[in-house]
Amino acid sequence: MRAIKLAKPGSLQKLAPAEVEARPPNPAEIQVRIEASSLNYHDYAVVSGMIPVDDGRIPMSDGAGTVTAVGEGVTEFAVGDAVLSCFFPNWQDGAPDHRKLLGVPGDQADGFAAETVTLPASAFTRAPKGYGPAQSATLTCAALTAWRALMVEARVKPGDVVLTLGTGGVSVFALQFAKAAGCRVISTSSSDEKLDSLKALGADGLINYRQIPDWGSRALELTDGRGVDVVVEIGGAGTLPQSITAVRLGGHISLIGVLAGFAGEVPTAALLGKNAAVKGIFVGSRAQQLDMIAAIETNAIEPVIDSSFPLEGIADAFRHQASQRHFGKICLEI
Amino acid sequence: MRAIKLAKPGSLQKLAPAEVEARPPNPAEIQVRIEASSLNYHDYAVVSGMIPVDDGRIPMSDGAGTVTAVGEGVTEFAVGDAVLSCFFPNWQDGAPDHRKLLGVPGDQADGFAAETVTLPASAFTRAPKGYGPAQSATLTCAALTAWRALMVEARVKPGDVVLTLGTGGVSVFALQFAKAAGCRVISTSSSDEKLDSLKALGADGLINYRQIPDWGSRALELTDGRGVDVVVEIGGAGTLPQSITAVRLGGHISLIGVLAGFAGEVPTAALLGKNAAVKGIFVGSRAQQLDMIAAIETNAIEPVIDSSFPLEGIADAFRHQASQRHFGKICLEI
Amino acid sequence: MRAIKLAKPGSLQKLAPAEVEARPPNPAEIQVRIEASSLNYHDYAVVSGMIPVDDGRIPMSDGAGTVTAVGEGVTEFAVGDAVLSCFFPNWQDGAPDHRKLLGVPGDQADGFAAETVTLPASAFTRAPKGYGPAQSATLTCAALTAWRALMVEARVKPGDVVLTLGTGGVSVFALQFAKAAGCRVISTSSSDEKLDSLKALGADGLINYRQIPDWGSRALELTDGRGVDVVVEIGGAGTLPQSITAVRLGGHISLIGVLAGFAGEVPTAALLGKNAAVKGIFVGSRAQQLDMIAAIETNAIEPVIDSSFPLEGIADAFRHQASQRHFGKICLEI
Amino acid sequence: MRAIKLAKPGSLQKLAPAEVEARPPNPAEIQVRIEASSLNYHDYAVVSGMIPVDDGRIPMSDGAGTVTAVGEGVTEFAVGDAVLSCFFPNWQDGAPDHRKLLGVPGDQADGFAAETVTLPASAFTRAPKGYGPAQSATLTCAALTAWRALMVEARVKPGDVVLTLGTGGVSVFALQFAKAAGCRVISTSSSDEKLDSLKALGADGLINYRQIPDWGSRALELTDGRGVDVVVEIGGAGTLPQSITAVRLGGHISLIGVLAGFAGEVPTAALLGKNAAVKGIFVGSRAQQLDMIAAIETNAIEPVIDSSFPLEGIADAFRHQASQRHFGKICLEI
Repeated sequence: MRAIKLAKPGSLQKLAPAEVEARPPNPAEIQVRIEASSLNYHDYAVVSGMIPVDDGRIPMSDGAGTVTAVGEGVTEFAVGDAVLSCFFPNWQDGAPDHRKLLGVPGDQADGFAAETVTLPASAFTRAPKGYGPAQSATLTCAALTAWRALMVEARVKPGDVVLTLGTGGVSVFALQFAKAAGCRVISTSSSDEKLDSLKALGADGLINYRQIPDWGSRALELTDGRGVDVVVEIGGAGTLPQSITAVRLGGHISLIGVLAGFAGEVPTAALLGKNAAVKGIFVGSRAQQLDMIAAIETNAIEPVIDSSFPLEGIADAFRHQASQRHFGKICLEI
Repeated sequence: MRAIKLAKPGSLQKLAPAEVEARPPNPAEIQVRIEASSLNYHDYAVVSGMIPVDDGRIPMSDGAGTVTAVGEGVTEFAVGDAVLSCFFPNWQDGAPDHRKLLGVPGDQADGFAAETVTLPASAFTRAPKGYGPAQSATLTCAALTAWRALMVEARVKPGDVVLTLGTGGVSVFALQFAKAAGCRVISTSSSDEKLDSLKALGADGLINYRQIPDWGSRALELTDGRGVDVVVEIGGAGTLPQSITAVRLGGHISLIGVLAGFAGEVPTAALLGKNAAVKGIFVGSRAQQLDMIAAIETNAIEPVIDSSFPLEGIADAFRHQASQRHFGKICLEI
Repeated sequence: MRAIKLAKPGSLQKLAPAEVEARPPNPAEIQVRIEASSLNYHDYAVVSGMIPVDDGRIPMSDGAGTVTAVGEGVTEFAVGDAVLSCFFPNWQDGAPDHRKLLGVPGDQADGFAAETVTLPASAFTRAPKGYGPAQSATLTCAALTAWRALMVEARVKPGDVVLTLGTGGVSVFALQFAKAAGCRVISTSSSDEKLDSLKALGADGLINYRQIPDWGSRALELTDGRGVDVVVEIGGAGTLPQSITAVRLGGHISLIGVLAGFAGEVPTAALLGKNAAVKGIFVGSRAQQLDMIAAIETNAIEPVIDSSFPLEGIADAFRHQASQRHFGKICLEI
Repeated sequence: MRAIKLAKPGSLQKLAPAEVEARPPNPAEIQVRIEASSLNYHDYAVVSGMIPVDDGRIPMSDGAGTVTAVGEGVTEFAVGDAVLSCFFPNWQDGAPDHRKLLGVPGDQADGFAAETVTLPASAFTRAPKGYGPAQSATLTCAALTAWRALMVEARVKPGDVVLTLGTGGVSVFALQFAKAAGCRVISTSSSDEKLDSLKALGADGLINYRQIPDWGSRALELTDGRGVDVVVEIGGAGTLPQSITAVRLGGHISLIGVLAGFAGEVPTAALLGKNAAVKGIFVGSRAQQLDMIAAIETNAIEPVIDSSFPLEGIADAFRHQASQRHFGKICLEI
């Protein structure tokens, strides 16, 4: 079968096609024909060498496809089932620990830039009813991160105000999940055109952060000075001061990415004065993924796909991601 | 001003008009022109004598209207504001205790079957934007009970399955709030016509409990055997065994009424086997009411009003309630 | 190796010695020399036929011993380690579901009335440091039930008041765990001698329920009318009305046993009026067992062992249990 | 009566004695003879001018004494009762908001460097049984901050590992409360002598942070690499990186002070990788104070008083505090 390997880790130019042998499943495994993947910042960090991986690693943490063979001990899946990979195949349930976070596909193990994989059945969940492979492939990392931030950590309820930053995959899913949960959503972007698209997805308040650099204060105003209940903070240290300004007294900031920096000046006194929480979030468990899929089905949530590339166009796909012009998820169709 | 008094407690026939003096507010109080009230089972228990009250008590726990005067220390309200009464005026916030549950209007204190009341400002909240008085008056008891059951105790999230019983005020609000929160809702009724109305409000699964007396098993089937996450149980001991059948392992049953009996045979071993919780719920706090109002505004929830009666028709209104033919709330317009 | 089998399920007289072959571990398994077990009501229900099991089933859910061989894929244990069985070997973590509750040893699978077992490593945890096998064998069912009731469901904090009923294994562990957590404990018994022993273990309030049949009201008095925060309710429907009397407004009743009846009259209106929760509890997960072991070590908690019997004396042990004269746990030493 | 006033805010030298008229209580108030106060960093920030206050402000947020008169509407207290002030007299219960945090004594209102105060009854709670005034006066700010961090926000359970930093009032109370809750405690100090005192109070692990500047890694080692469950972080941005190193995956850092800086470089990527929460904590509510008092009584917790000064020695007391040589609380006896 075809796959993509990192011939020399850390070099986007060296994403090289490779031929890999497909393997029949052992009793606890399933074999899956991978039909789509999607790009995350984590994948970019791998292929660009920020996260060092083994030589010859197959990248991509997200994969969706169809079951082609099942081990004799597998009862949850049958041949022909549409399935979706888990970001942490060893984090089935409960609270995270070090052992559960090992084995991330496309990083510590081979990922889904491949036509066929053979893995434990527990490394997959069913796909949402009615979803195609590209739609499913958007969920593994970005959607589950947004889900966990809002539904597991912040535990939003109808009427809460959620602030999302920008138009990356996590932020757009956060907007959609927050609306499904009956929240009011304030969204930011650097472009009025993207703000229009966010509005079409249900955003109640809009802020162009290029025009209003002090967007934290603007979000505060849009809540009549009370502040937002939850910020889905994708920026890290660079944007955290603004998020602390925007959040209400006792509110919750989900820190889900470090696009804007790996460390930085944080106004800890302001955080203290706000009695606010900053919680680091890094994707979620298989059990949380199943809860999210139930929510997606009940609320008929459609992932926003920016664009799709063929497997061989993986380098182009990452260049498109790096340009930061996308809105929603960039997919690979395999 | 006009009011209704219970001339002889426990006698529906003796709901007698009376003339009562309106009182100016002290520094912490507001005076409110009451424009609507709504009927709850609790009010019926008072006017029918099940709950004994002082002679001459003015009934009705729910009241909505317009502020006509404010005490000099009041900053939260101004003359002309639309307001809404609190079921527990002494339960402002936090967990309930005995002291906080004292002073319920229409029971331990005079209620809202009156043209004018003068009470502490903290006994009211703002009304939802765009609501008329009758709409607001539906919220105090029934809506807040449903809100607390789902959002404070059970803490539902999108994709959870909620089971509501019948078409009384609490159950219809529970359906509406659960849908606003992205849940899947299964609703029961004794009539196919009412089931159609429940469907129009968003119910995903419908059970005619007259045709299917074992409705608990039917609800289980509708969840593919997994069981519902939450039951908003209005019936008390009579229906609890069916609710225990319907609920999932580890699920939550909010016990919010005792229509079906004050005590009864409960299959405790089944409850144990289900690892399920039964939690008694009795309305909620002022802080919870403010959260609910934010949710109502964000989600444009409209209360379902079955019918309205003038203040003098209060006995007719209670007879209509007792017939159990209503769907949603019965109001008094004053 | 020697074992005990239920020659005819449901007949205590037919607990028959048997010779069973010890099996080497597969890659994910460990082989354990079982050195002790302990008796629970659940075991009694099995050997007395209340819970039907397969013919020839080896009873006993609790087992502790020493690892004698490890499969090649096992990293958590080494030969010589002291280990402790899990009541639900398939409930590793997270919330319970039907699949996780399958495979209980001594019920749906062979149990620990045997000299040697070979099982997945995940069916065991490490034993507390310094514990002997009989001490460890008391934890699997009774201690974990008490732990989950107080620390996972009721989530007690220092200063909370906990009510324990009688002197069975769960109740005595609940007393010890509650004291370790800084709670005040009120305990009941039918005998003043046992009450003295409960006092020696730290009980702050004592009630002889034979002398004071209305022990719920007595517990209420001992809290100056406020009520207890948590009841560890082992009796089921027979004692639940008293527990509802004893609990505070908004309190928590952990329903952990059905000694007093499988169903019964429950004052649902009183439960509603108390805004109290009744939560069915049935042992717990492997992750919870590890948390409990950490707490046992930190607080140097010693299990209370009533008496020990040799494996061949298993029928005598159950007769002693049925007499209800024990205080704490009855063990088998193998 | 005698009092101390800030003649010129921001100048420790100008803490000037003054004569103030005692006022009889209105119906909702009590008059209290203040017998002790205690020093907090917040008080130091006021008297040293870091927090600007009105001219002539009476400082000190903590006060304890005896009720000398009660308003006619007050039922909770009687003349002669020992009482204790609330840091946030308007935060009775529930979640904090801006309005509830107004009116802090010794900052936005006159405080307790005075012989007599007349305030609403709700601005006090009962004192723990058996406590003298100086003991009670240590609780208002420091103890309640430690209580809320551990019992309300982090919600520790027996066996959890808590890390405390230094020997200030909050840290010593955190050690005592954590031990009462059955936790394992690791404590740091710059002096071996103080570490001995921490050990005597129950600390299980000790780190001299002057000798081991990388104390976060040392704490990690003391938990066999797993990390601590909770850090009671009093230092702010200067120590936060070490705390992030020390905390376990998914752990909780309570940020309760800003001794080490009002802002600073924070390794946000490390926080994200740890899936850890940093939660700002600023004292607590009156309801939480009552819970804490119950815990203190149940567990016979004695506050650690470093030294006591007379009211007139207030400037000396603050100089002693600023020297950072104290262990536990510095009190004023009035």
